[in-house]
Amino acid sequence: MPTDIEIAQNATLKPIGEIAENLDLADSDWEPYGHTKAKLSDKLLEKLEKKQDGKIILVTSINPTPAGEGKSTVTVGLGQALNRLGKKAIIALREPSLGPVMGMKGGAAGGGYSQVLPMEDINLHFTGDLHAITSANNALSAFIDNHIHRGNELNIDPRRIEWKRVMDMNDRVLRQIVVGLGGPLRGVPREDGFNITVASEIMAILCLATSLENLKERIAKIVVGYTYDEEPVTVKDLKMEGALTLLLKDAIKPNLVQTVENTPAIIHGGPFANIAHGCNSIMATKTAAKLGDYVVTESGFGADLGLEKFLDIKSRAGEFDTDAVVIVATVRALKMHGGVAKDDLKSENIDALEAGMVNLQKHIETVEQFGLPYVVAINKFPNDTEAETDYITDWCEARGIDAALTDIWAHGGEGGMELARNVVQTAQSPERNFQRIYELEDSLDTKIRKIAQKVYGADDIELTAKAQKQLAFYEKQGWGNLPVCMAKTQYSLSDDPSLLGRPSGFTITVRELRASIGAGFIVVLTGDMMTMPGLPKKPAALNMDVTEDGKIRGLF
Amino acid sequence: MPTDIEIAQNATLKPIGEIAENLDLADSDWEPYGHTKAKLSDKLLEKLEKKQDGKIILVTSINPTPAGEGKSTVTVGLGQALNRLGKKAIIALREPSLGPVMGMKGGAAGGGYSQVLPMEDINLHFTGDLHAITSANNALSAFIDNHIHRGNELNIDPRRIEWKRVMDMNDRVLRQIVVGLGGPLRGVPREDGFNITVASEIMAILCLATSLENLKERIAKIVVGYTYDEEPVTVKDLKMEGALTLLLKDAIKPNLVQTVENTPAIIHGGPFANIAHGCNSIMATKTAAKLGDYVVTESGFGADLGLEKFLDIKSRAGEFDTDAVVIVATVRALKMHGGVAKDDLKSENIDALEAGMVNLQKHIETVEQFGLPYVVAINKFPNDTEAETDYITDWCEARGIDAALTDIWAHGGEGGMELARNVVQTAQSPERNFQRIYELEDSLDTKIRKIAQKVYGADDIELTAKAQKQLAFYEKQGWGNLPVCMAKTQYSLSDDPSLLGRPSGFTITVRELRASIGAGFIVVLTGDMMTMPGLPKKPAALNMDVTEDGKIRGLF
Repeated sequence: MPTDIEIAQNATLKPIGEIAENLDLADSDWEPYGHTKAKLSDKLLEKLEKKQDGKIILVTSINPTPAGEGKSTVTVGLGQALNRLGKKAIIALREPSLGPVMGMKGGAAGGGYSQVLPMEDINLHFTGDLHAITSANNALSAFIDNHIHRGNELNIDPRRIEWKRVMDMNDRVLRQIVVGLGGPLRGVPREDGFNITVASEIMAILCLATSLENLKERIAKIVVGYTYDEEPVTVKDLKMEGALTLLLKDAIKPNLVQTVENTPAIIHGGPFANIAHGCNSIMATKTAAKLGDYVVTESGFGADLGLEKFLDIKSRAGEFDTDAVVIVATVRALKMHGGVAKDDLKSENIDALEAGMVNLQKHIETVEQFGLPYVVAINKFPNDTEAETDYITDWCEARGIDAALTDIWAHGGEGGMELARNVVQTAQSPERNFQRIYELEDSLDTKIRKIAQKVYGADDIELTAKAQKQLAFYEKQGWGNLPVCMAKTQYSLSDDPSLLGRPSGFTITVRELRASIGAGFIVVLTGDMMTMPGLPKKPAALNMDVTEDGKIRGLF
Repeated sequence: MPTDIEIAQNATLKPIGEIAENLDLADSDWEPYGHTKAKLSDKLLEKLEKKQDGKIILVTSINPTPAGEGKSTVTVGLGQALNRLGKKAIIALREPSLGPVMGMKGGAAGGGYSQVLPMEDINLHFTGDLHAITSANNALSAFIDNHIHRGNELNIDPRRIEWKRVMDMNDRVLRQIVVGLGGPLRGVPREDGFNITVASEIMAILCLATSLENLKERIAKIVVGYTYDEEPVTVKDLKMEGALTLLLKDAIKPNLVQTVENTPAIIHGGPFANIAHGCNSIMATKTAAKLGDYVVTESGFGADLGLEKFLDIKSRAGEFDTDAVVIVATVRALKMHGGVAKDDLKSENIDALEAGMVNLQKHIETVEQFGLPYVVAINKFPNDTEAETDYITDWCEARGIDAALTDIWAHGGEGGMELARNVVQTAQSPERNFQRIYELEDSLDTKIRKIAQKVYGADDIELTAKAQKQLAFYEKQGWGNLPVCMAKTQYSLSDDPSLLGRPSGFTITVRELRASIGAGFIVVLTGDMMTMPGLPKKPAALNMDVTEDGKIRGLF
């Protein structure tokens, strides 16, 4: 089997204009960025307002493990398979972040014969969206510090600035820094730190905005910190919403590319899935729904985090329906949930698989609580035995659960035909009773408890003294009606990453809250969330290269 | 007179494909970035190797003053005028930096009817070149700190790291910082600081590279700091040259746009003009020379800095000829050199003008020392009186100097016809005896002295103890044969910014050296060079906005 980049380099891409034409786009609806990338107009949604929406298929997974689940790969493969079925399918994915590509990942645009292309551009600077977000975030930081340096008319407390600088790089030494050293010409010293760009509230805002105007309104509401009197200071107070929106005028336009099999893909936005909601942009998903009969999209991490946020935050803000859910599981990951160490995954182990099924079971129950129809996708990996994949299939069949074995990494769309047929049928199912986990009118406390109990299976929640104080303060500010965005470890249903499978009898500890008022949610931290990754001992970048004839190495 | 952005928004742009076609470019020679921007292939130069070069016209100026000289505007206007004369002219400019656009400038793409377009893109993210440079620079920083954190195999001394992080923002609190705080998981603490992106050595390298391969060779040579044994540590030692070159694979491609009058313009690269050489890229200039009969390009600041570096560094590395020089002077700036304060410039003042002519005189002598033919461009501003402009014209005529009055800001190419005719004649002049100010074989000390004496008119140079020590160390490292890049105040011919006109009897104090081995020059610091600007009290960004219908405000 060739490597991802070999497959990518051997693929025959259509000119992006041809992809656009197949989607019935007019010349004024898109702009080329090179020959195989385009930006779609941010006015397209408005133009197509009256057109009926295609079906929206959400791909989620069990709790991720180091074994890998291939959720993006299934998303791409399913889109390709739907196209092979003669459906007009569009894939809607998140944009990769450069930092992790240089660090551990080496790439994040699907894999094998289910990739989005040109992967070497998508994995690097792409159309510059993340750079624009970095610029807007850091312009705001520079303006805050300049405001303080120039007399601090707004009375901003330098100890209570919540707005951090960002960089799209894995750079641990920037996590905690002191700025403004060196005397009066170099500003007012204070503690600060950098997050990775995808953790910027501006990324979350870009992904939740429904138009350029809405983007500006949200940016104006960002709370950057507090005054010495503990009053919130907003971007509007700093008069920066116009400039920041201007910096994002192109970043807000969804990006059109294609897969290895020339299926159209819209790749746009990629917020963190813990301190933010972890989904691609509303504008991309809704635009895709206007242009295709089927949109296949994904949410971050497992169903406990990504799917919950997709349904409680994204689809609420975007006011759209979700037609079916695909829950990705793998033999390998289920075996890890059943207690097998990563190094022992190659051996067949039905007992461990059986023990691990509880994790899948819980996520199925979660999707059922939302009242959405679903299919389980068993994503095949090379070392899986037939006995193992059969075990999962039988397990599903015994419970009347739709399931399909997919082999989309090795075979592209062809490996996902059964899944695609299942999805088409499931999405047409009239049996649905969609309901969200909580109502906006619930108190913040109630919202957190409902998620913890219904989605994580916790007995209850417990708030630290700090969190209790913040909760009271936020309610007093009038922020109690916002949705909550849970920042929890992705590895466990609980807040303890070592508890795999389906833990029970646990309490979720809420350590701290954060107000993302521009994004429009309250972040609930249940542990130390890493918002600036570090580099490993041997970063992926050490193998990267480009030769004089343009041949690229080291992306995968 | 409408504002710059009004002129820009009312201009009729041709599709960039039409501009490319007029330059006889094949489809494979360029890629679109939107409808009015393109990137030219980095292989174009090789493809056109045997084609004869067009004439290269270098635009420089007297020492800049707060009154403004309009060098970029003259460059654009002259290109437009040459086109009106029926010549195939191409303009080659530097890319604006976002930080200053948000701070003081609000824009930097020419002005009035001599602008490059789309100015709103060129002034913001453009085609992402500066963002790619930021990424490459900061990836290197992250890898250096990761290397130290992970055991420091190369024995790098954290106190002797010369490689700084960068950001394309005016952000004074980042000038001096401490990173790596917060315990062992957050790296090794050390002092650091951010420069603005255009001050990155990678920007200088991008502008001096002659191909993608040469870019990689130069990057490998960057000295990032020293070991505890004071041995240089290079990018090659860190094995990062492949990844950094990959990050720059598109940034190295020159950008094609057009002016208000549809004259083609290649805008590419923009290094600092003090700690770097201040010219657009060699690849842009040479590609323009292959595509046009005339290339009009500019260098940074006055002739003492920009032109000297263009001729001693850029054209030496690029191995190309310069055919004629245009020296831009204005009544306003010359009056300031003659002692008038900025607020009093509106009144006619022939005495001050007469006193200020010595500044122009010195730069003319400098160009004559290089043995290049030249024309003086008197760039008209609205309040100039006829007596004032006549004074300069007469002064030139009395000395047999070619001079032309230009009014290209208000009238575009039409306002530069006399200059264009002069330039065509001058560039054909067979009388030339080009010689550089110094030879590479000269010692570093001799190179600095030759520039100080011949170009600045100094009596001598004086080295601080630190500079002397560095000089000996650099010679020992084998770096003595590199060209020197002078970092001196742009406001004066001397190293004292308050000495306008033509100071004499002064000594240039060399305070410190810096080794830009990848760029291939030794930076000579003659004062405190600001490599990270700050924001003013009321930054330009406060007036910026974009409305729902895409109308942009606040760029000028």
